Amino acid sequence: MSTSIRWLDDIRWNADGLTPVVVQDYADGRVLMVAWMNRDALARTVDGGQAVYWSRSRQCLWRKGESSGHIQMVKELRLDCDGDALLLKVEQQGGIACHTGRASCFFYRLQNGEWSAVDPVLKDPSAIYA
Amino acid sequence: MSTSIRWLDDIRWNADGLTPVVVQDYADGRVLMVAWMNRDALARTVDGGQAVYWSRSRQCLWRKGESSGHIQMVKELRLDCDGDALLLKVEQQGGIACHTGRASCFFYRLQNGEWSAVDPVLKDPSAIYA
Repeated sequence: MSTSIRWLDDIRWNADGLTPVVVQDYADGRVLMVAWMNRDALARTVDGGQAVYWSRSRQCLWRKGESSGHIQMVKELRLDCDGDALLLKVEQQGGIACHTGRASCFFYRLQNGEWSAVDPVLKDPSAIYA
Repeated sequence: MSTSIRWLDDIRWNADGLTPVVVQDYADGRVLMVAWMNRDALARTVDGGQAVYWSRSRQCLWRKGESSGHIQMVKELRLDCDGDALLLKVEQQGGIACHTGRASCFFYRLQNGEWSAVDPVLKDPSAIYA
């Protein structure tokens, strides 16, 4: 798929051949989501410039935004010191990363001993996935 | 350990009883590291206000900064939409999260088909772990 694969070999994939990916908004630094990639997903992400993940629940490649239109354009890719986590900085199309219609998937904040949804729904999911 | 544990039960721990934790600098939004917590580590983190992780390599609790002094004070804790990833916003003591003496563990950037260390070493590790 790619002429050079050494950078893919440098990653310490887990027993399932996956690595967690922190997805961060390139412009404002907001952490949008955590997803997972296998080798193929990462190669496709870098080759195409749009985020492709591995869905652990569906056991298939998942092109982010394929149904919602909320694709993620790759701006920068980083690897951590021990090679087992990725940081993907993206331009989030539509400003919505979460399937609930929120900017970020991390919208539950722990306060007073419970998880409270503290971020607004920017678009109704039924309108996103119509 | 805690009178209320429902918020701990709300988390979808993986088969090993762990969840990945994205650690973000509260002030500037920089992603510092990805670590892992089990239930006990998370309870201790919230109770004590300082980050405690689970070391998968050493199979023990790991109080971040116990040897380096680079402890992480908890400012905010978030959970994602499907309950299987945490976002911990911290005040990073010493401004160094990485054992290499860099601000962030994500200092390798993919450029020209290879991982390049692009962030400066702020303090020599031999001085940190003396």
